[in-house]
Amino acid sequence: MIVGNPVLVEELSPIMYTIKRIKSILVSTKTKYQSVLIAELHGFGKSLVLDGYVQSTEADEHLYHEPLVHPSMVTHPSPETVLIIGGSEGATLREVLKYRTVASVDMVDIDGELIEYTKKYLQSMHQNSFEDTRVRIYVEDGLEYIRKCDRSKYDVVIMDLTDPYSPVPIAKHLYEEGTFMEIKRILREGGIVVTQAGCSFYHPSVYLSIVRSAANVFKVVREYYSWVPSFGYVNNFLIASDVYDPAALSREEVDARLRSRGVVTKYYDGQLHVSLFNQKTIIGAHDF
Amino acid sequence: MIVGNPVLVEELSPIMYTIKRIKSILVSTKTKYQSVLIAELHGFGKSLVLDGYVQSTEADEHLYHEPLVHPSMVTHPSPETVLIIGGSEGATLREVLKYRTVASVDMVDIDGELIEYTKKYLQSMHQNSFEDTRVRIYVEDGLEYIRKCDRSKYDVVIMDLTDPYSPVPIAKHLYEEGTFMEIKRILREGGIVVTQAGCSFYHPSVYLSIVRSAANVFKVVREYYSWVPSFGYVNNFLIASDVYDPAALSREEVDARLRSRGVVTKYYDGQLHVSLFNQKTIIGAHDF
Amino acid sequence: MIVGNPVLVEELSPIMYTIKRIKSILVSTKTKYQSVLIAELHGFGKSLVLDGYVQSTEADEHLYHEPLVHPSMVTHPSPETVLIIGGSEGATLREVLKYRTVASVDMVDIDGELIEYTKKYLQSMHQNSFEDTRVRIYVEDGLEYIRKCDRSKYDVVIMDLTDPYSPVPIAKHLYEEGTFMEIKRILREGGIVVTQAGCSFYHPSVYLSIVRSAANVFKVVREYYSWVPSFGYVNNFLIASDVYDPAALSREEVDARLRSRGVVTKYYDGQLHVSLFNQKTIIGAHDF
Amino acid sequence: MIVGNPVLVEELSPIMYTIKRIKSILVSTKTKYQSVLIAELHGFGKSLVLDGYVQSTEADEHLYHEPLVHPSMVTHPSPETVLIIGGSEGATLREVLKYRTVASVDMVDIDGELIEYTKKYLQSMHQNSFEDTRVRIYVEDGLEYIRKCDRSKYDVVIMDLTDPYSPVPIAKHLYEEGTFMEIKRILREGGIVVTQAGCSFYHPSVYLSIVRSAANVFKVVREYYSWVPSFGYVNNFLIASDVYDPAALSREEVDARLRSRGVVTKYYDGQLHVSLFNQKTIIGAHDF
Repeated sequence: MIVGNPVLVEELSPIMYTIKRIKSILVSTKTKYQSVLIAELHGFGKSLVLDGYVQSTEADEHLYHEPLVHPSMVTHPSPETVLIIGGSEGATLREVLKYRTVASVDMVDIDGELIEYTKKYLQSMHQNSFEDTRVRIYVEDGLEYIRKCDRSKYDVVIMDLTDPYSPVPIAKHLYEEGTFMEIKRILREGGIVVTQAGCSFYHPSVYLSIVRSAANVFKVVREYYSWVPSFGYVNNFLIASDVYDPAALSREEVDARLRSRGVVTKYYDGQLHVSLFNQKTIIGAHDF
Repeated sequence: MIVGNPVLVEELSPIMYTIKRIKSILVSTKTKYQSVLIAELHGFGKSLVLDGYVQSTEADEHLYHEPLVHPSMVTHPSPETVLIIGGSEGATLREVLKYRTVASVDMVDIDGELIEYTKKYLQSMHQNSFEDTRVRIYVEDGLEYIRKCDRSKYDVVIMDLTDPYSPVPIAKHLYEEGTFMEIKRILREGGIVVTQAGCSFYHPSVYLSIVRSAANVFKVVREYYSWVPSFGYVNNFLIASDVYDPAALSREEVDARLRSRGVVTKYYDGQLHVSLFNQKTIIGAHDF
Repeated sequence: MIVGNPVLVEELSPIMYTIKRIKSILVSTKTKYQSVLIAELHGFGKSLVLDGYVQSTEADEHLYHEPLVHPSMVTHPSPETVLIIGGSEGATLREVLKYRTVASVDMVDIDGELIEYTKKYLQSMHQNSFEDTRVRIYVEDGLEYIRKCDRSKYDVVIMDLTDPYSPVPIAKHLYEEGTFMEIKRILREGGIVVTQAGCSFYHPSVYLSIVRSAANVFKVVREYYSWVPSFGYVNNFLIASDVYDPAALSREEVDARLRSRGVVTKYYDGQLHVSLFNQKTIIGAHDF
Repeated sequence: MIVGNPVLVEELSPIMYTIKRIKSILVSTKTKYQSVLIAELHGFGKSLVLDGYVQSTEADEHLYHEPLVHPSMVTHPSPETVLIIGGSEGATLREVLKYRTVASVDMVDIDGELIEYTKKYLQSMHQNSFEDTRVRIYVEDGLEYIRKCDRSKYDVVIMDLTDPYSPVPIAKHLYEEGTFMEIKRILREGGIVVTQAGCSFYHPSVYLSIVRSAANVFKVVREYYSWVPSFGYVNNFLIASDVYDPAALSREEVDARLRSRGVVTKYYDGQLHVSLFNQKTIIGAHDF
């Protein structure tokens, strides 16, 4: 099936690649910051590919975006103000807006041209979240935005960035200890930050350095991961806070909070929450 | 890196393939039953590939074999007699033999020639388990062995077979309801059976039919899965029993049983057990 | 470069595949007869791919179509009526129409839907040849057309078909001895037939059977080939006639005939003609 | 067939790659100068791959080595002393030694370790030519050898080097004008030099610069090419001399010289010679 049909080869690491089949190409271009491919992949549906890396597919983006968003949003006792760094396709925004506690969401993405493409072609992902009156979009570098930002502004900060080991690592500086310190500054009392952290098996040293950076800045750091089929690997996440610990929430408490905040999900719930915070991180032996 | 170096392309499903890099080829042959490739893969070490599908690699086989073996062995109050169906590379055997409660292990694999290759080339996997005096090897079809077998013989039956949707599905009949009925017959009171069950995302209808088959025969059926990087997906497992339920064991009880039975592991423990039995199975939308 | 970008893998034979890079996809569909992909390939331009096999690319289709058409058209002393079997993208037609001796060209292609796509998307290939008043298009199976055809109708018959060893061999029957006999019937006195014949290295037994079929029917059979970069191999051709022999034409005579008939080419000329008819066919040791 | 079996992906250019299937790996190592893979490829037999580029396979190396060696050796009226630069697998040597006119052959290859591997594993290529008493092997850089060499020493110089656009271009300086001037110095009166010149379609600017370099130094320069299936392209060659012109030889004269010099070939003969020197070079539109 990979012979005679358009396919996409993706490098997970120098020891592992995937091949997926392309049904059609909707956008294939370069913005100022990255190459953008929006294609329909066989079995995965419409998909966003940045610099050759699949970011989201219709078939499984909820397996990435729900674990990215909900553990932190549920762990916070009452998230009102949220900052999303990255998140161009609007699916992280979509999940955050499900919380009736949320009064405002700011989203900062460096690539405005990319947002225009995702608005136009990935409606099934953003579901018009960009038009919610609680939302404000800032087109600029995430770190610059944070530096200019007032202190104690956000309850939850969600880092939904491309991997720090991307070939063109436009988000690399956002995983550094200095960035976590800046984020701490703009968090309100009891605030929580969560970040995707790539893959701890294929890129152990990068992953461990993100964990260390977060642990140097926050009192509680929790690791978890979620399998995303189209990625070909489990995606790691980190939650950090000085006050709240997601591992302390029971299944019942999580379900109760989702209910009271009006949140309906496809995958995440109290039972999954328990599973996520009892996982053991799988660290690869080397980088390659 | 995939250009100019030997590589192996593997089909996970018609919508997803992986590419891994080959360092050297130790065995490349066809037995009576299947094609056998034993190769050293970059970053994964010595690896067993049957009919084009990676079965085990040195780097991550514990992420498959520990979740395959320990949940059932721990859930059983005192496993003495164990049957392994399949399991040619001896790693399942290795894990079972860690239990000091175990008095005898029978292993049935249809492919005697394959066992000779794994004995010779995959010492790091079997770790000479084949020479343990508690072990007996039977070279024959698993179902034929079970049919001839006395009733009430085993405390735990472990099915470590190739996937039912393999291109040459030599193990397909072993996933059917009739086989589970035969296994039930040879289980002792309180016996437990566990099987690997392929990937529920890429092969949902096959996976669901295995779940149904088991559920038609046993009172308790529990699903769980484990990520195996070299597979490119999470591997699903099923535990079935008429008496014991792995989901009922606490983290502390699991750790206590491992300790008292003399079992030392690399990955599995009480905390992971809790994580495994709170997962949510990820079912794909279609077969492809 | 093949990582992170859409690519097309093509099977030349079970021992050899090519990978080309896709810039954009113009058409990806299935007609009643075959899968049709019209894509822009990096470095090759707009390209027609049928059932997974590249047929023509803007960058090098002249290296296929000129050697297909001109040796027979030049060898005939005055070609007036021409039949093209296949040739959907209109490039063969374009070359034939260059001869001011030609009064009528009939083109028979089984796939009318395909012709509509090539008309629309491959203007650079057909160059509006379909609108020349000398041209008539018949949408039907080539062999059926020939069987119904009056005897002694054509001076030159050009078979521009997909390979007989295609996965879906819709043209296979057209390479058989019976077809050459039918073609002989519809040729006028001194008529010539030419066919593309796949690749004699990768598919020797098919190639040799075409040569034998032609030799059983015609007195003169000449083999030649031309390298087509996008194919990854040299493409073989056969010319057959009862009267005229292309190998007997001198360089000067070929150039004189091209000139007098008003034919301007990019690649073919008298010198190349001499080269083509002094080649040695490269026959592979086996089929695979 | 490319799924589930070891394969080799080769980059011909950024717009074209090939995939071949690997049966077994005999050598996979790095010497001081290059990566060396000696593998058995399905359908091609034992094959030498340097820095990821196939150099020679048992199935078709004669389609490279015969056109490399014989046109120059036949064009020279009586080749007695021959220099081969490169040519590690000994097949060029084998062809040169067929001439009973040849009294001595010097072969200079920078990679002595590679020669040891080819001696051991590629006997079918060198056919023990290294042991012929007329042969002397020098392990050193070709240009350094030439610079130290006495003037007017060789009748024929054969450059059998890796491509100048190789990823690690260890032979690049040998294609420059200065090298042709040095070679001219060591040629005897009427001497001839021939070089492989990569692929003029995929690497036009490199190819044209080699042609220019040769044309700036020698009065007669002739281009020709030969299809080598395992390369996936036609390989270009250049012959240069101040006196003799291969294009001036008739078919009959070539055959007579081969006969009188005791040379038996598999592919090359007088007819092919005529074909080769009437070809038209196929130059690609761009480099990629």
